[in-house]
Amino acid sequence: MGVIGYGYWGPNIVRNFFAASNCTVISVADARPERLVVLSKSYPSIKGVNSADEIINSKEIDAVVIATPVFTHFSLAKAALNNGKHVLIEKPITSTAAEAEELINLAEQKGLTVMADHTFLYTGAVHKMKELIDSENIGKIHYFDSTRINLGLFQPDVNVLWDLAPHDISMLMYLVDERPVSINATGISHTHNGIENIAYMTVNYSSDFIAHFNCSWTSPVKVRQTLIGGDKKMIVYNDLEPSEKIRVYDTGFQHKTDEDKKKILVDYRTGDVFIPKLAGGEALLGVATDFIQSILNKTAPRATAKLGLQVVKILQASQESIKNNGKEIKL
Amino acid sequence: MGVIGYGYWGPNIVRNFFAASNCTVISVADARPERLVVLSKSYPSIKGVNSADEIINSKEIDAVVIATPVFTHFSLAKAALNNGKHVLIEKPITSTAAEAEELINLAEQKGLTVMADHTFLYTGAVHKMKELIDSENIGKIHYFDSTRINLGLFQPDVNVLWDLAPHDISMLMYLVDERPVSINATGISHTHNGIENIAYMTVNYSSDFIAHFNCSWTSPVKVRQTLIGGDKKMIVYNDLEPSEKIRVYDTGFQHKTDEDKKKILVDYRTGDVFIPKLAGGEALLGVATDFIQSILNKTAPRATAKLGLQVVKILQASQESIKNNGKEIKL
Amino acid sequence: MGVIGYGYWGPNIVRNFFAASNCTVISVADARPERLVVLSKSYPSIKGVNSADEIINSKEIDAVVIATPVFTHFSLAKAALNNGKHVLIEKPITSTAAEAEELINLAEQKGLTVMADHTFLYTGAVHKMKELIDSENIGKIHYFDSTRINLGLFQPDVNVLWDLAPHDISMLMYLVDERPVSINATGISHTHNGIENIAYMTVNYSSDFIAHFNCSWTSPVKVRQTLIGGDKKMIVYNDLEPSEKIRVYDTGFQHKTDEDKKKILVDYRTGDVFIPKLAGGEALLGVATDFIQSILNKTAPRATAKLGLQVVKILQASQESIKNNGKEIKL
Amino acid sequence: MGVIGYGYWGPNIVRNFFAASNCTVISVADARPERLVVLSKSYPSIKGVNSADEIINSKEIDAVVIATPVFTHFSLAKAALNNGKHVLIEKPITSTAAEAEELINLAEQKGLTVMADHTFLYTGAVHKMKELIDSENIGKIHYFDSTRINLGLFQPDVNVLWDLAPHDISMLMYLVDERPVSINATGISHTHNGIENIAYMTVNYSSDFIAHFNCSWTSPVKVRQTLIGGDKKMIVYNDLEPSEKIRVYDTGFQHKTDEDKKKILVDYRTGDVFIPKLAGGEALLGVATDFIQSILNKTAPRATAKLGLQVVKILQASQESIKNNGKEIKL
Repeated sequence: MGVIGYGYWGPNIVRNFFAASNCTVISVADARPERLVVLSKSYPSIKGVNSADEIINSKEIDAVVIATPVFTHFSLAKAALNNGKHVLIEKPITSTAAEAEELINLAEQKGLTVMADHTFLYTGAVHKMKELIDSENIGKIHYFDSTRINLGLFQPDVNVLWDLAPHDISMLMYLVDERPVSINATGISHTHNGIENIAYMTVNYSSDFIAHFNCSWTSPVKVRQTLIGGDKKMIVYNDLEPSEKIRVYDTGFQHKTDEDKKKILVDYRTGDVFIPKLAGGEALLGVATDFIQSILNKTAPRATAKLGLQVVKILQASQESIKNNGKEIKL
Repeated sequence: MGVIGYGYWGPNIVRNFFAASNCTVISVADARPERLVVLSKSYPSIKGVNSADEIINSKEIDAVVIATPVFTHFSLAKAALNNGKHVLIEKPITSTAAEAEELINLAEQKGLTVMADHTFLYTGAVHKMKELIDSENIGKIHYFDSTRINLGLFQPDVNVLWDLAPHDISMLMYLVDERPVSINATGISHTHNGIENIAYMTVNYSSDFIAHFNCSWTSPVKVRQTLIGGDKKMIVYNDLEPSEKIRVYDTGFQHKTDEDKKKILVDYRTGDVFIPKLAGGEALLGVATDFIQSILNKTAPRATAKLGLQVVKILQASQESIKNNGKEIKL
Repeated sequence: MGVIGYGYWGPNIVRNFFAASNCTVISVADARPERLVVLSKSYPSIKGVNSADEIINSKEIDAVVIATPVFTHFSLAKAALNNGKHVLIEKPITSTAAEAEELINLAEQKGLTVMADHTFLYTGAVHKMKELIDSENIGKIHYFDSTRINLGLFQPDVNVLWDLAPHDISMLMYLVDERPVSINATGISHTHNGIENIAYMTVNYSSDFIAHFNCSWTSPVKVRQTLIGGDKKMIVYNDLEPSEKIRVYDTGFQHKTDEDKKKILVDYRTGDVFIPKLAGGEALLGVATDFIQSILNKTAPRATAKLGLQVVKILQASQESIKNNGKEIKL
Repeated sequence: MGVIGYGYWGPNIVRNFFAASNCTVISVADARPERLVVLSKSYPSIKGVNSADEIINSKEIDAVVIATPVFTHFSLAKAALNNGKHVLIEKPITSTAAEAEELINLAEQKGLTVMADHTFLYTGAVHKMKELIDSENIGKIHYFDSTRINLGLFQPDVNVLWDLAPHDISMLMYLVDERPVSINATGISHTHNGIENIAYMTVNYSSDFIAHFNCSWTSPVKVRQTLIGGDKKMIVYNDLEPSEKIRVYDTGFQHKTDEDKKKILVDYRTGDVFIPKLAGGEALLGVATDFIQSILNKTAPRATAKLGLQVVKILQASQESIKNNGKEIKL
């Protein structure tokens, strides 16, 4: 195994693949010498190299993790696949949907695994929500409403949706089978450089399901909350709660269309609240294990590149919508 | 003083005008006999009548409060103004901007007061926010982000924005001087009758200020939260907090455009939090007092009909935007 | 039915007995003329009298509610029982255990009901806790830990335990069958008049169950929280939560005494949290209904005078302990 | 510098002294070989030894940190002082007050520093509270009320007060100058081995100040809260809040003794709440720096051994009180 990029996320990647079974991290590439010094202190057994090529061309290496800035993902992943390596790519997997599609096709041709590191899909919270939804506890899902705001670092190259929303979009893609048909998004750049620090996105479906995302780098309070409403029960997922991230409300509503269509008859119900205990463990170790298993067993991982492609498609459409004054962009 | 409508809000209106100085509530109109029975038990001194006309035509009555369904506001208010009465109208004041404009013009011609009952403008919380903003404590305001969701009664005639957003839009109009230029809105009707129970609205300005509204009748949790971000400080207004509704964060960010325009330089600052004590008292008593004073002193009330008109304009535009797939609607 | 005392609690008493079935409130006594004016406005059908004797001596009246200061409870209740009236007495029922015992004996001789108005026993929260405990969901109960603090009115005649703890002690008596054997209490009077505004009480049992009470009139924050720990599950009861007062933690611990008695082996378990929906309705209406039913059916009410006597015994012992520097006082 | 004990706290000690200026950690002693393996992985430059004597007798070492079980503190510290080493001892510094006094005297004779590792005194929260109190913002202090409960590890040798209360007692000693005169404590051992897992302690003073401590290893919820009430303002310190640990309430009460001494006149005041930003940084680094500076400058550290002695005196008295059914124990 080789890792390209030892910046913010790279050390977490290395630590978890180090702890995973059935794999050995042989080398890590980073162009910054000081990062390789940090690496060698923590992992004297791993070879630090200053060029990604050394990893991509290495014959010892079967699989590569790419943890570099987004705009470099495509060319690195393409080269790695062409050299016969399995690839795990940081989220968002590419800058454009076309690039992601090309990687997926290439991997298919070569019989290689390409996977997106959508870490949230491997948390106990998302696992529990998936279980609740699949077991039909929640009923038909009506909406998904996510808020991810805080006083955060302004990114120089991507807007707040590209930075923060991939977590929530990947959850939506994983939890809900239906695929969206269009996007509306609005936002504002207080730095006046065209990179929005506040943005709002509605994701539209052909059914009456709706999803909405509220992202900001400029909130005085940190909020990480998602509401998922079904006709049987509703979920509130608050990722800031240390031990009570998921609350299941035995709350619902049902409407009956009256014959003369003039009256609305809506039955409400509020009941108990249930806070399930969640599985522990580091999510990224789940990513590492899934990547390794999907290579060994030739099975699809949970965070497929196709799911990663869906995320990129939505982000691209959101950007187009913002630049066109909130116009609906078809997917 | 006469009051038309003794349903949900009417009794609050009567109770507060009863308690206010310089006015006497003479009669209350409601077509439902059982409501007049309730009235007579609580206020034996007030005459209950079953037709609004009796109030509008009464020579004893100088001012009328209209607390009936929205679609009746315009014709009742117009008749009252034509009969020389001052008028206070429940929010939203009319169903269309054109109607509101006609009432404003008519009142101006007749030298009468027409006022909107935007009760929230008279709360201690809004008063404190106005004070903080006007004293330049907050600095230049960057955004206004409001969430008003709960498991609520589905209205049969108006969508969730018309039902819940007037509170927040009136605050925005009162707190921020700049006027919006356009609206984008999206939403969904789970009753399939064209009346949205979840809706999202972005209000756009010619400056880099932005406002956003998230309204739902179908949330398992009740949220009443507004974030107001300035470049000096930021406010979080949580109306569900019993005694700590307003929190002022000594938090801000400032960007400096670098010469080569490639780098973003943003300075962050987080500091103390301050929770001011708010003035108590019932907001609706403030409405009553302001209405009476504005009649007696021939001054403009805080909740002018013009402010009410702005609210209606935005609601109308939001509806048009939702029906046109989120298209930007100019105001 | 007659009610003696129309101060703070009396109007609530009257309102609920007015709403209850199988009873008519005929007259209310209060020595303060202005209170009788308030009464006559709200309830023109009820006769206001200025002396408790008029109620105690009335032949029309079968039952009396005593809602006067504590030191008057005994003589009023005794006179009422001697005149053949059933009696419901505000908490705490008397100033001394001896007085409470005399009333209980007198009622027994006369075949009359004497009941304590421990309103909390009729709340949905206490009802749910009783149900959980009785159904052995919670297991063997280990402790009861209650905090009831706020910035409150200093009482001129009784200390903070007599003022605030009756609620919590009555719950303890109702929820746990075992009876305490002794009391330790400490406290302080910041008014230097011998009336403690902060006090702490431990209630000791012959088993390894323990109860503790923390009461204060001088806390900047309001806390109303009780922890009840069982060996199967634990309950947290937060009375300030609007809709989530009871939380049941699937948390427990079990110790196994090791053979050599040197090691402690304790198994911990943390699991789901469950927030049951509680029955609604006003607790005091439950008191009224229970009083009426216990008279009609000659059955014991939930809040028996014997339970009220237990509360007084504990309060008396706590006072003695505080005055003796926290010395253990046997019950 | 040498460190004795590399169990739970030792690695934190080593990490912070490693980061501190003007000192070098030369060796660490632990009798368990596996702990020395852990040490050598993290700090190849530090010599691991399996006997404390090697550190105590080393001529290279000027100062020793003792991070071993409480019952070993005295003999290790005494030996180190006798060998001319400065000593920093984990809290509580000794098992008995007599031992602590002997160490203090010995250090004085030898001109050496002996310091207690009461880490909480070096947190931003305690620093801010000290500042608020010393600047007379809070006024005369009336009470200190601390709750430290959670589902915690049962200690095999010391009860819950010895385990959890040292943090809070050290804060009390640091924040309030007056010294207590007696202790009352109660508690229960659910393991039936005489080691209480729930305990309550009142600390009495000759003035009308009072302190109370509620400690438990068997609570389903974690609480870390201290109320400090002054006659000008009150502080609520919630250590679980990530960024808002200290809240200052502009709340107070003042009593005026009326002439006839029968009435209590208490003026209440509630006002703004202020949440100051706290200094960051790891508290233990502050401990390390203070220890080094107090050696170099021959000054007293913040967490003097005398403060540590006060803590032990109170713990000893609490134990005696619990074993004597809550009897007041003079200090």
